[in-house]
Amino acid sequence: MPQPELLETFPNPYADRDYEIFMTTPEFTSLCPLGGVESDAAELALLKGGAPDFATINITYVPDAVCLELKSLKLYLWSFRNDGIFYERVVNRILDDLVAAAQPRSMKVVGDFNVRGGLKSIISAEYRKPR
Amino acid sequence: MPQPELLETFPNPYADRDYEIFMTTPEFTSLCPLGGVESDAAELALLKGGAPDFATINITYVPDAVCLELKSLKLYLWSFRNDGIFYERVVNRILDDLVAAAQPRSMKVVGDFNVRGGLKSIISAEYRKPR
Amino acid sequence: MPQPELLETFPNPYADRDYEIFMTTPEFTSLCPLGGVESDAAELALLKGGAPDFATINITYVPDAVCLELKSLKLYLWSFRNDGIFYERVVNRILDDLVAAAQPRSMKVVGDFNVRGGLKSIISAEYRKPR
Amino acid sequence: MPQPELLETFPNPYADRDYEIFMTTPEFTSLCPLGGVESDAAELALLKGGAPDFATINITYVPDAVCLELKSLKLYLWSFRNDGIFYERVVNRILDDLVAAAQPRSMKVVGDFNVRGGLKSIISAEYRKPR
Amino acid sequence: MPQPELLETFPNPYADRDYEIFMTTPEFTSLCPLGGVESDAAELALLKGGAPDFATINITYVPDAVCLELKSLKLYLWSFRNDGIFYERVVNRILDDLVAAAQPRSMKVVGDFNVRGGLKSIISAEYRKPR
Amino acid sequence: MPQPELLETFPNPYADRDYEIFMTTPEFTSLCPLGGVESDAAELALLKGGAPDFATINITYVPDAVCLELKSLKLYLWSFRNDGIFYERVVNRILDDLVAAAQPRSMKVVGDFNVRGGLKSIISAEYRKPR
Amino acid sequence: MPQPELLETFPNPYADRDYEIFMTTPEFTSLCPLGGVESDAAELALLKGGAPDFATINITYVPDAVCLELKSLKLYLWSFRNDGIFYERVVNRILDDLVAAAQPRSMKVVGDFNVRGGLKSIISAEYRKPR
Amino acid sequence: MPQPELLETFPNPYADRDYEIFMTTPEFTSLCPLGGVESDAAELALLKGGAPDFATINITYVPDAVCLELKSLKLYLWSFRNDGIFYERVVNRILDDLVAAAQPRSMKVVGDFNVRGGLKSIISAEYRKPR
Amino acid sequence: MPQPELLETFPNPYADRDYEIFMTTPEFTSLCPLGGVESDAAELALLKGGAPDFATINITYVPDAVCLELKSLKLYLWSFRNDGIFYERVVNRILDDLVAAAQPRSMKVVGDFNVRGGLKSIISAEYRKPR
Amino acid sequence: MPQPELLETFPNPYADRDYEIFMTTPEFTSLCPLGGVESDAAELALLKGGAPDFATINITYVPDAVCLELKSLKLYLWSFRNDGIFYERVVNRILDDLVAAAQPRSMKVVGDFNVRGGLKSIISAEYRKPR
Repeated sequence: MPQPELLETFPNPYADRDYEIFMTTPEFTSLCPLGGVESDAAELALLKGGAPDFATINITYVPDAVCLELKSLKLYLWSFRNDGIFYERVVNRILDDLVAAAQPRSMKVVGDFNVRGGLKSIISAEYRKPR
Repeated sequence: MPQPELLETFPNPYADRDYEIFMTTPEFTSLCPLGGVESDAAELALLKGGAPDFATINITYVPDAVCLELKSLKLYLWSFRNDGIFYERVVNRILDDLVAAAQPRSMKVVGDFNVRGGLKSIISAEYRKPR
Repeated sequence: MPQPELLETFPNPYADRDYEIFMTTPEFTSLCPLGGVESDAAELALLKGGAPDFATINITYVPDAVCLELKSLKLYLWSFRNDGIFYERVVNRILDDLVAAAQPRSMKVVGDFNVRGGLKSIISAEYRKPR
Repeated sequence: MPQPELLETFPNPYADRDYEIFMTTPEFTSLCPLGGVESDAAELALLKGGAPDFATINITYVPDAVCLELKSLKLYLWSFRNDGIFYERVVNRILDDLVAAAQPRSMKVVGDFNVRGGLKSIISAEYRKPR
Repeated sequence: MPQPELLETFPNPYADRDYEIFMTTPEFTSLCPLGGVESDAAELALLKGGAPDFATINITYVPDAVCLELKSLKLYLWSFRNDGIFYERVVNRILDDLVAAAQPRSMKVVGDFNVRGGLKSIISAEYRKPR
Repeated sequence: MPQPELLETFPNPYADRDYEIFMTTPEFTSLCPLGGVESDAAELALLKGGAPDFATINITYVPDAVCLELKSLKLYLWSFRNDGIFYERVVNRILDDLVAAAQPRSMKVVGDFNVRGGLKSIISAEYRKPR
Repeated sequence: MPQPELLETFPNPYADRDYEIFMTTPEFTSLCPLGGVESDAAELALLKGGAPDFATINITYVPDAVCLELKSLKLYLWSFRNDGIFYERVVNRILDDLVAAAQPRSMKVVGDFNVRGGLKSIISAEYRKPR
Repeated sequence: MPQPELLETFPNPYADRDYEIFMTTPEFTSLCPLGGVESDAAELALLKGGAPDFATINITYVPDAVCLELKSLKLYLWSFRNDGIFYERVVNRILDDLVAAAQPRSMKVVGDFNVRGGLKSIISAEYRKPR
Repeated sequence: MPQPELLETFPNPYADRDYEIFMTTPEFTSLCPLGGVESDAAELALLKGGAPDFATINITYVPDAVCLELKSLKLYLWSFRNDGIFYERVVNRILDDLVAAAQPRSMKVVGDFNVRGGLKSIISAEYRKPR
Repeated sequence: MPQPELLETFPNPYADRDYEIFMTTPEFTSLCPLGGVESDAAELALLKGGAPDFATINITYVPDAVCLELKSLKLYLWSFRNDGIFYERVVNRILDDLVAAAQPRSMKVVGDFNVRGGLKSIISAEYRKPR
């Protein structure tokens, strides 16, 4: 299960200014709950879980009172490794967890998933703090 | 004939938020009804159908109540394989079929067709749900 | 001389929707009326005409009642092959001829000409149908 | 079924010299006999055939008495479109058919197949005429 | 633990000819036994295992009596997902397992691992059947 | 410590016009105060300082009365070499120092930092002179 | 000294339409008045002039009554070859000279200068004809 | 008709040393004698000649007593513009004409022709002076 | 001073096979003893040391009894950070130090240094164990 | 006139080993003695010299007793700036001058000249010290 409790923050040293932080990793992996587009039941039985998914995750945000601590973000993203979760949930879940942890002025999360069944998928979700 | 009845959907898990889903495949192929820019009648007689066309199809949409199921989309796109259909119809037809199936808040379909007669064609069509 | 009479059209199958058609060819060639940046009179005498120019031509338009037929467009572009014509005229002339033939809702023509005298030139012209 | 009888040749105009002809197309498609890495029985039943495969085919040869006629080669490659055939057979079969038709001094065929199950495959086979 | 028993083969349909099969996947992942260049004990305790490693694996071989079945190869590579194993062992172990399964005429395995500590590593190992 | 006193300016020769100056260097390096995402205490003890960070720094500004002298900017950026400083501070500090030195009409500083822990970070901050 | 008197124009054949002309050359070179970021007095004494600068110059404009003649523009740009001139002056001077010669509806000049002292500089200036 | 009499040479200033000269142009165009892979009789009647072909021509040689004069080579390549000639003949004819004109120690000519019928062709021929 | 005593090794787990390990980092930096191509004495006085140099270092080797430990290699390369050392010495010194530490069957070190004075330098040195 | 007397050397610190030094600059410029492929007499009269040529110069050598000093090489290459000299002479002259100055074990010089008359030229010459 994703572990948002791993996320840590530190005080934003330039909180009086709107500035943007972008972070990206090509190393996100999770499992597909049902084996996904390309697997059948026999495969899943062998592996005792869903077929692996791979994605690049891009995160862009304008910090408010705190910034996301980079090492804790890495650990948080690792925590999806052995969970079964659909693409749409991955991206929206990361957005919700990071918004809860850092309360940013705005944030965008993009998940760029590897080809499955000849189709590539990119999911994008955004948050903007109500004024 | 394109088979829109192959398309399946599942409930959008984050329907309270506008977010974007992009899907792309370089593996679209159909036939040209009249043989197209580069073929003559003799060729068509040999093959009992039109000359093959190849395209990359890009689909971008903001889901409303449901999302398009990826595997069913793959099968739907395969169903053009042995039909004779012009470029303009391919793109507008896919848009119409996907809008009918998923009732998205908005959708864009782009067909990027391979060079024929030294000319490359890219067709783009968009839909926006009336408010 | 460019032969706009070669251009053919067919009824737009989705005329109730604004959608965009982009076509591009790297195979445009014409002659320079005066030999251009890089030739002198001796060369021209040898070749009985101007020095060759080469360009990629990009055409983007929103069709109205009719679409441009692809094969006829190819033949029309070939008809510049042995004419002497300046860059600015090439692009504006193609725009005028295509607008006259297809009466589109809007159109853009871009001519991206090869390096001459160390200088590369790109000319862009646009048309928008008066409402 | 692949139709090698479509292949035509013409006399090599420079047969006294060893020279090399390379031809490549990104538009090869066939079907997978068993549905392949990514499909299950339900999909195949729907489509009444195997899942589509896509490849770029590269052909390099040194002609001897005859050259392969380009248009006939295009038609021959189209004839795989609705056949179920494994990757290894595609490449070796094309090599055998082209060698039989053109009797070249040497030939190499490379099939660069699209990603299936996260894996990309490239198969290469060569022929050298015995002296 | 890597599961070589997942590997399956099928008879080489062109065993009388030396030809080459190349397969590549950017989706290899395993764990580092000691946390690797970039992790400390606290991280490992959290994740109950080593830090994830990511690699592209390239396999090139000349088949002898049998070919590697693609789907089984995919499952075999998945079986490294939750094992702790060093880079050098990953590449040599895959080579040993695939040689044992397919008895090829020759084989090369290359593991191209993602940056760790600012350093990228690529390991290559080869096998050649004794005559 | 960063040495803003190294920065020099010269009178803007075209101060009556708004025009833009962009400068970029891939050669920025500083140290991470705590060793960063990828280092532990043992490493830091060895090096008597934090782990090195590397970045490309992009600066875009519209000069007002003065322009930044290029050589002095190079020396100023060198002055971060042996300081421990977090990514967010690097970018905001450079922006503050350059704004103080040149009083530009507007300025943007972007720091594109190398991968650490599989994550790449890009920080962007902007200044606009109050009217 | 730059020689704006070299610039020639010809009547704009489509003056009733706003269209854009873009020209670019990677072959601009001038000298730095003081030797620049990377040279010292000894070098300059040897060469009896400043250190060479190199740039790509991009020019975009909407012609009004006249167009810039391409060959004369080439000669004008050559005339900077042995002059000492700073980056900011190069770009603004070219803009001023071309505006004076062609009186365009609008114009933008961009100078993209080679790396000096590890820093790359790009200067952009624009002109818009008052209505 | 190709005009080899346009070719001029000048004495090789370093004839005592084997060194290599490579020249390439993306601006080669000729006509296809029979309209080629993509044209039919109606098109050809319209244009009073074959369909245009386009190629990049690469020439590599080791000069002996003379070098090829660059401007005359340009004119020679222009002389193919309105001739109908097959790909194989283009490359071998250029090789023969240049060898006759310059008597080089060795020479290679490569013609890289644009896509026709979805197929790209590259033809390579070589000459080596007998010792 | 470079600190070869930081280098650690571990037993080669596949010592009975010749296989290749390639490692590369774009994060090498040292100082130039005399300020280098682009600096003068005034700059150096300010910085109390030479001007910074930046390079990508590539290391390829065939291990014998031991492999280089990746983390220790990172620390060793960091130890050049504040030393003044010429390009030629950097590459040959790294080769000597790594050969002394790992006694490989063969090794190649390549240093690809950033542009200085408009010139880029790449130095390559190799070692082969005497048999 | 090229000034080989500007070239300086320093003792090779690793003369007991064959290792390779590669240097490249995109900033070489000279003049064409006769105005070259693209200029006529009127242009040359205006500029009181030939038309400018631009090239990237690549130098690869194995040093013997001495290495080429980088700053002096930069100055030497600048000394061609206002000389009229043909491509073939540029490359062979640089080779001769550098061999005379550094007496290397081997050396290769490549001049990659910008497009003139639609043709790009690359000249390569090599030297090998007699044993």
